[in-house]
Amino acid sequence: MSAPSDHAASCTLSFDALVSLLEKIFLRHGTSTEVARCLAENCAGAERDGAHSHGVFRLPGYVSTLNSGWVNGEAVPAVEDVASGFVAVDAGNGFAQPALAAARALLVEKARSAGIAVLAIRNSHHFAALWPDVEPFAYEGLVALTVVNSMTCVVPHGADRPLFGTNPIAFAAPRADGEPIVFDLATSAIAHGDVQIAARKGELLPPGMGVDSLGQPTRDPKAILEGGALLPFGGHKGSALSMMVELLAAALTGGNFSFEFDWSNHPGAKTPWTGQLLIVIDPSKTAGQDFAERSRELVRQMHGVGLRRLPGDRRHRERSKANEQGITLDEQTLAQLRGLAGV
Amino acid sequence: MSAPSDHAASCTLSFDALVSLLEKIFLRHGTSTEVARCLAENCAGAERDGAHSHGVFRLPGYVSTLNSGWVNGEAVPAVEDVASGFVAVDAGNGFAQPALAAARALLVEKARSAGIAVLAIRNSHHFAALWPDVEPFAYEGLVALTVVNSMTCVVPHGADRPLFGTNPIAFAAPRADGEPIVFDLATSAIAHGDVQIAARKGELLPPGMGVDSLGQPTRDPKAILEGGALLPFGGHKGSALSMMVELLAAALTGGNFSFEFDWSNHPGAKTPWTGQLLIVIDPSKTAGQDFAERSRELVRQMHGVGLRRLPGDRRHRERSKANEQGITLDEQTLAQLRGLAGV
Repeated sequence: MSAPSDHAASCTLSFDALVSLLEKIFLRHGTSTEVARCLAENCAGAERDGAHSHGVFRLPGYVSTLNSGWVNGEAVPAVEDVASGFVAVDAGNGFAQPALAAARALLVEKARSAGIAVLAIRNSHHFAALWPDVEPFAYEGLVALTVVNSMTCVVPHGADRPLFGTNPIAFAAPRADGEPIVFDLATSAIAHGDVQIAARKGELLPPGMGVDSLGQPTRDPKAILEGGALLPFGGHKGSALSMMVELLAAALTGGNFSFEFDWSNHPGAKTPWTGQLLIVIDPSKTAGQDFAERSRELVRQMHGVGLRRLPGDRRHRERSKANEQGITLDEQTLAQLRGLAGV
Repeated sequence: MSAPSDHAASCTLSFDALVSLLEKIFLRHGTSTEVARCLAENCAGAERDGAHSHGVFRLPGYVSTLNSGWVNGEAVPAVEDVASGFVAVDAGNGFAQPALAAARALLVEKARSAGIAVLAIRNSHHFAALWPDVEPFAYEGLVALTVVNSMTCVVPHGADRPLFGTNPIAFAAPRADGEPIVFDLATSAIAHGDVQIAARKGELLPPGMGVDSLGQPTRDPKAILEGGALLPFGGHKGSALSMMVELLAAALTGGNFSFEFDWSNHPGAKTPWTGQLLIVIDPSKTAGQDFAERSRELVRQMHGVGLRRLPGDRRHRERSKANEQGITLDEQTLAQLRGLAGV
């Protein structure tokens, strides 16, 4: 691990230093070097971009899961070339990110050749933000859409009890003269990580986010976490999208639905054992238009009607700041990470 | 046109009789026989399934648009075989449904071969419900997702003035021993047709659906229609999805954004001149699982947590009823349709 920078008193690390520290933690808890690198970069990237609920906050969960034997940190993804537009990966009960990394080159090749390609990851654990899975495609001029299902914690609209996961959808598209257009949204009214953070801080949630163990509306994050459940965003529409995510990420990949896995024999397991679907489109196949120019025009018009912040703007601002000044962690967090890394 | 059935007093027609009547209307207002058949079946299907805001209610709008010279009712779609997973159609300033019909066989062939295929329709007008575009794929064992942009009437979350269209998303997936799982949702808080129907009935809307011409929240559908605008569903998340629809249905197809066309020289024009994207996936490529069995299991579990009605259930119930008893129209509506048909 590199030494903290000049700002050591305020616990500021470079991105590379944070990746290196996180890599040590993963390696120490039983992952392969490939998996450690992949997860460390993913997690440090979320922290750098200000996505704290998917940043170093997640490390204790990763460690606890690895210690429980629930996930195989050394799994080698098995990539299958199924058809001219279809790649499948059996993640081997490992993490989803190394599975995507293993299939990525083939997926891009197919998308550029066929115009569209799909990656179906099964037998995988996704415990991270979803936008890092799509953003890199946009930097290569491709449009990407991904969905992942998770674990039962969302009550379908019109039902009494939870069934769906938070089931996020992430999308990325290139933009001329600017950062890609990227969003990542849970189909639950709030992300699970944000409920955990609110509970830790002792804050109340806005109304409409969840129910307690009796199915009654509550603003108390602890009541949601202790036997309660989340609601879908946007009523029946968000619920329909969450259902679609179950079908695409689980039924279509061959992975588990959010309610199918049983981790009761693995105390400490935190990661959902499900599937992920990724669709990549090559917009250069479009007749007579430059996609990136068109998306720049859309953004220009959005600003023209008074929009001040695009989805993703805050992340890019935080990223620039971190690239200049380093990533700031509080001392307690850094000490905890160092403890986990044994350094 | 077939004569109304025995229930003539209550204005009940068979599906075929309604198709035949609507076909006459389209033909009389300048469409080709292919286009007339396609639109008549689409519109009669929506009416039969109880989707009244996209049923015969739309005919005056179709007629007004055709009369204005805004859309080419005789356009012959030009299908381009772009790549092994990519079909493009120039709808020739005609309707989107005939363009989809013209490209459909090639799209299905590509999806079955490549595992996934995309259809990019541009230079097209979509004035109908969106689920009829995807449901037939599910009956053939395929999974389909489509998006279409429309015309400026939705204020992006965080902006002051409208820019996006109602930009619906529709999805269909096969289900063993049951009707396909199908949903069709506007990314606006309410569909434009439902605002028009509420205005016609003099009813107030629920809160949160739209703003008046000054940008202030209103429940009055007339205030929304007369210079006001709709809001996206689900705040920033629905707004992000609406933005995605603009990028996929317009930028990616080569069609117009919802704010780009100018129909001011065509008084009476009602149909948005934009684009549509359709993605079809062959789930039989999935390793070791039968997709339709899996979606049946998901539905079984949804009922198990207390869900009484799936998206689409009402449509299928209405369809069964109409197939047995015919489609009921009020006498005034039927007289209006006959007037438009000149019979």
